[in-house]
Amino acid sequence: MAPPQNVPKMTYRFLGRSGLQVSSISLGGWLTYGGYAEQEKTFACMKAAYDCGINFFDCAEVYAEGKSEEVMGEAIRKYGWKRNDIVISTKLYWGHAFGENRINNVGLSRKHVVEGMNQSLKRLGLEYVDLIYAHRPDRQTPMEETVRAFNHLIDSGKALYWGTSEWNADEIASAWRHADRLGLIGPVMEQPAYNMLEREKVEREFAHLYREVGLGLTVFSPMRQGILTGKYKDGVPDDSRFAQQQVEFIAGYWKRTGKEKWNAVIKQVNELIPIADELGIKMSTLALAWVLKNPNVSSAITGASSPEQVYENVLAIDAVDKLTPEIMDRIDLILGNKPPAIVARF
Amino acid sequence: MAPPQNVPKMTYRFLGRSGLQVSSISLGGWLTYGGYAEQEKTFACMKAAYDCGINFFDCAEVYAEGKSEEVMGEAIRKYGWKRNDIVISTKLYWGHAFGENRINNVGLSRKHVVEGMNQSLKRLGLEYVDLIYAHRPDRQTPMEETVRAFNHLIDSGKALYWGTSEWNADEIASAWRHADRLGLIGPVMEQPAYNMLEREKVEREFAHLYREVGLGLTVFSPMRQGILTGKYKDGVPDDSRFAQQQVEFIAGYWKRTGKEKWNAVIKQVNELIPIADELGIKMSTLALAWVLKNPNVSSAITGASSPEQVYENVLAIDAVDKLTPEIMDRIDLILGNKPPAIVARF
Amino acid sequence: MAPPQNVPKMTYRFLGRSGLQVSSISLGGWLTYGGYAEQEKTFACMKAAYDCGINFFDCAEVYAEGKSEEVMGEAIRKYGWKRNDIVISTKLYWGHAFGENRINNVGLSRKHVVEGMNQSLKRLGLEYVDLIYAHRPDRQTPMEETVRAFNHLIDSGKALYWGTSEWNADEIASAWRHADRLGLIGPVMEQPAYNMLEREKVEREFAHLYREVGLGLTVFSPMRQGILTGKYKDGVPDDSRFAQQQVEFIAGYWKRTGKEKWNAVIKQVNELIPIADELGIKMSTLALAWVLKNPNVSSAITGASSPEQVYENVLAIDAVDKLTPEIMDRIDLILGNKPPAIVARF
Amino acid sequence: MAPPQNVPKMTYRFLGRSGLQVSSISLGGWLTYGGYAEQEKTFACMKAAYDCGINFFDCAEVYAEGKSEEVMGEAIRKYGWKRNDIVISTKLYWGHAFGENRINNVGLSRKHVVEGMNQSLKRLGLEYVDLIYAHRPDRQTPMEETVRAFNHLIDSGKALYWGTSEWNADEIASAWRHADRLGLIGPVMEQPAYNMLEREKVEREFAHLYREVGLGLTVFSPMRQGILTGKYKDGVPDDSRFAQQQVEFIAGYWKRTGKEKWNAVIKQVNELIPIADELGIKMSTLALAWVLKNPNVSSAITGASSPEQVYENVLAIDAVDKLTPEIMDRIDLILGNKPPAIVARF
Repeated sequence: MAPPQNVPKMTYRFLGRSGLQVSSISLGGWLTYGGYAEQEKTFACMKAAYDCGINFFDCAEVYAEGKSEEVMGEAIRKYGWKRNDIVISTKLYWGHAFGENRINNVGLSRKHVVEGMNQSLKRLGLEYVDLIYAHRPDRQTPMEETVRAFNHLIDSGKALYWGTSEWNADEIASAWRHADRLGLIGPVMEQPAYNMLEREKVEREFAHLYREVGLGLTVFSPMRQGILTGKYKDGVPDDSRFAQQQVEFIAGYWKRTGKEKWNAVIKQVNELIPIADELGIKMSTLALAWVLKNPNVSSAITGASSPEQVYENVLAIDAVDKLTPEIMDRIDLILGNKPPAIVARF
Repeated sequence: MAPPQNVPKMTYRFLGRSGLQVSSISLGGWLTYGGYAEQEKTFACMKAAYDCGINFFDCAEVYAEGKSEEVMGEAIRKYGWKRNDIVISTKLYWGHAFGENRINNVGLSRKHVVEGMNQSLKRLGLEYVDLIYAHRPDRQTPMEETVRAFNHLIDSGKALYWGTSEWNADEIASAWRHADRLGLIGPVMEQPAYNMLEREKVEREFAHLYREVGLGLTVFSPMRQGILTGKYKDGVPDDSRFAQQQVEFIAGYWKRTGKEKWNAVIKQVNELIPIADELGIKMSTLALAWVLKNPNVSSAITGASSPEQVYENVLAIDAVDKLTPEIMDRIDLILGNKPPAIVARF
Repeated sequence: MAPPQNVPKMTYRFLGRSGLQVSSISLGGWLTYGGYAEQEKTFACMKAAYDCGINFFDCAEVYAEGKSEEVMGEAIRKYGWKRNDIVISTKLYWGHAFGENRINNVGLSRKHVVEGMNQSLKRLGLEYVDLIYAHRPDRQTPMEETVRAFNHLIDSGKALYWGTSEWNADEIASAWRHADRLGLIGPVMEQPAYNMLEREKVEREFAHLYREVGLGLTVFSPMRQGILTGKYKDGVPDDSRFAQQQVEFIAGYWKRTGKEKWNAVIKQVNELIPIADELGIKMSTLALAWVLKNPNVSSAITGASSPEQVYENVLAIDAVDKLTPEIMDRIDLILGNKPPAIVARF
Repeated sequence: MAPPQNVPKMTYRFLGRSGLQVSSISLGGWLTYGGYAEQEKTFACMKAAYDCGINFFDCAEVYAEGKSEEVMGEAIRKYGWKRNDIVISTKLYWGHAFGENRINNVGLSRKHVVEGMNQSLKRLGLEYVDLIYAHRPDRQTPMEETVRAFNHLIDSGKALYWGTSEWNADEIASAWRHADRLGLIGPVMEQPAYNMLEREKVEREFAHLYREVGLGLTVFSPMRQGILTGKYKDGVPDDSRFAQQQVEFIAGYWKRTGKEKWNAVIKQVNELIPIADELGIKMSTLALAWVLKNPNVSSAITGASSPEQVYENVLAIDAVDKLTPEIMDRIDLILGNKPPAIVARF
């Protein structure tokens, strides 16, 4: 089954300052959960994505306690995709965050990086991944050890590029410091959350790194856990996790916020919907296209529970050009969260 | 005139991971503004500071448009202090931020770093300063050029150590990256604001740098422009600068706040005053001692407009030990702004 | 059979400045000697250790002429332990110090390091060890060759970390010199003897290395060949090895000492026993806890000939907190061998 | 006045693995104390030394609180010696260890190394010294800072070679580690005490460094404060400093020893005197020749209070060849302190 005719041609972007090209939209592996039925659905989503030109499939050792990697690997074999046509990633940090004795089965020590990689490859049924991520910073392991360990994966042919996920700017700069000092390879990509509601890291904190180290971004959560699709437009239910959990640094204080905060957000989303209407696209397409508009984004990682959802996500490719400077300004006005430009010299 | 008998013996701390020792309390050069009368007052303050064991005198090319450096240099000659008994700093960035032609008389290009240093030394009447700071990050000059320029100052004998002022953690890490890569000297100290009301940078953002590069801190604004002395305890006047200027990142938005924000702060300060009373010290002493309690602080830079104020500042040395874990907890409870601990591994 | 209820929860420590965590108490492989009966006992001890949370098992090619490695490997397979849950070490130097042709089967030449590693892995039945030690310094092989050879083991995936055993401080510093110069990995841990009666190396000679290179210690002989268990409290028999062998550097002379020396030691141990009694612990527990009290010790390697002995060793974990500064002072007074503090600057 | 005819021709040795040659016997600057009379004597001694072919004159900033350097400089000018015919050293560490405010006027921080050097050159009246020593290790200043600071002296033309005095082997190895890592110059010589009674450092602790870094030695105290001249052959007086001060690490204990210790030493010296008689030389000549017999010694620094003493010291040059292997063995037997050979491989 081919994608519907209205699905646009995929575009590809270089992964930061590397020679690797990834599809602007990619598929994330956390959609896989377990039982047989879901597995079939996962296969269908991956097939739909591949047929749309998506070449980058993202995973992690911790997703579904290793099952994500297994199902993803099975799909690759099932459809007989050529290894050089796809970009496969996984992430190391939490090992299997279960079981009893897990002292060294977590973090970014050489031991876990090496052992975790071997276990991931076994689950994936691959000889190597294209991208390997440090799934969090490990503040107890010396940075040099971590930088060396990820280079060891590349040297031993188990990965082609390494990067980080949810690291701070100074941690990324520090990794490059050790890499440069030792003549090793630095982290070429970072995987942060990025969407209309979470802009600080990507637009402000990482600003120097694009120029300094050529950082590429594979961003997740482009729709902020669904809130940017407009599905909560009548307000956040009392029992939703949005109403329950929220910690913010407000005016110098760390506070637990909740429903009020999110209802304010929904009010904003409701103001964005008319813009989507005006452009003749869905709110979710607007949200995803807005993410792709940022040239520092190499790929936006999306989830999907059906082929139809995959196709719909890909529509955002065509919507990017509709986001004129004027439209972007109107969006910024509604959001009110555009980080101040990095202060220039004067 | 010797310091009063109740003034405690000065303590000294290593400037980060260097072999240089600076007095825990230091004197800042921006106290000097111009006319003759003030100059006499500056001399008196510096003399009082020196007599109290303060060895570190901080300045910048931009303070009073160069006059601060001139008066500081004059005081050193006037009192005949030995060069090796004092630690003199200045800072480069804004050149003389006045006049008409300011194209290259600003920033961290090799041209301004070299020329600015020469002009500062001339104004100071010294052959070298102990500490030279990059007074701001310069996002238009390549980091490598800046790192090389400050190393040139050290190599040519015009400065002994270099550091930064109001840089971000990732900019400092990036400077070290280039320094390490090139076998050059990295910035050993940073000069941020630090006080009970501004804790994020020092306690959270810089956290990795203490271990990674041995960053030392010479902090300014220990009393938050006087607000922590308790002098505004009846509220902020409508025309004060506190009421006028305030930009905060609140719940994801950048907003201008004002009087309300500061009145809330003053309410907190008013809750701290009883703790100072209980310890038998002034509120200002409590605020300064609290800054010194942080072991990552190498020196707290204070201002003074009279010898008496210098002596009073130095009283904080004795108050540090009064800040028991219990007292610190009570202060944190009132402030409500203690940054969450850096997340550990598990 | 689970450990008795009074056995405390194991604690883990980072191995020096690395990201690897080892149990504070570990099990040494030299307990294995040969015949079938002993093998069963070794299995039982290793099982008991694992059940107590001990994750680090120490071995060496020379122990029992290779049999130690074989039995250790067999135990791992027998109990089906996951590779990432355990930390396995071995040591290279003496090859099989027997047989006729021993020219290159010894020392730290690239030839023996590579060949010895391969033979050890074969005996262990493992693909890699976590820790590989240079079992002695080799003063005939250039340090650079040795540093390169151990890095080759890490690069080729046969070991994760390398270290030294019974090296001098300057030899360790020299290894780091070559590692740094070549951008290679330096030795992260040293394995010296350390106990109440042998403190010089750990407390004085290595003092700079903890800060300079982040040296971790896996110490052996925590009970000084049993003498600190109190079992010789009535004196050393004439035919004991203590009475026979002893060379000491006394007052500028190298002298053979003997029974008198050891009887003096036993007198001291007899003065320590009342302290153990007072704390409600055995003398052997006091001796082991005293070793663990030193924060530079990553792991104390113990021997055991029965599961009961393993359990008893682990009791020391709980006793560490009983060693208050006052108790430590009383112990130092009895031992009279506390190395003078490293002279500070003034 | 030319040297007496029996004074042998001076010999020269390379200073470790450098291209600089120093006279085997040199003159130490601590002989200078102050008043006018002594100054004349110093001049006479230096002249006698120069006339004997001694080219190396050793000094330190701390000797006689700077006066040693002044007198030495004056002598050079007085006799019009060519700069390229002499090797002048000084040492930095204690600054002027007097005065009130001495926070940064001591140790091996960049500040003191740079400032101390400038002050020493001013006192010496020289543009540069040949050798600059770090007079002690500074355990509070990062080694990298110290290595860079001494290289700065060389780069700025103020010194030709740098070395250490009374450092441990691992500290010297660590300095080389940083020097090599940074492409800088390491310390080429060490100045320890070395004589028949103090052999550990030179013969054992430094053993690897001769090969590893080509360490040269300029040794002081060849006669152990006169005790090896035989002048105390009837015992140590109760009020001598030998009787008062002595701390030794004996059989695992740090103990204060005293008169007994020294009387035992004198007994040994009294056994050595017949050997000197047999060789037809004075005991003091034997002691100095014995020091020169060690090929790792580049120069033995001697003191003198008269030209005659200089001449007598130089006699040791001729005595070196009289120390046959048999004689050396007999001396070792009496001394009983020959360090065990560094254990070889088997």
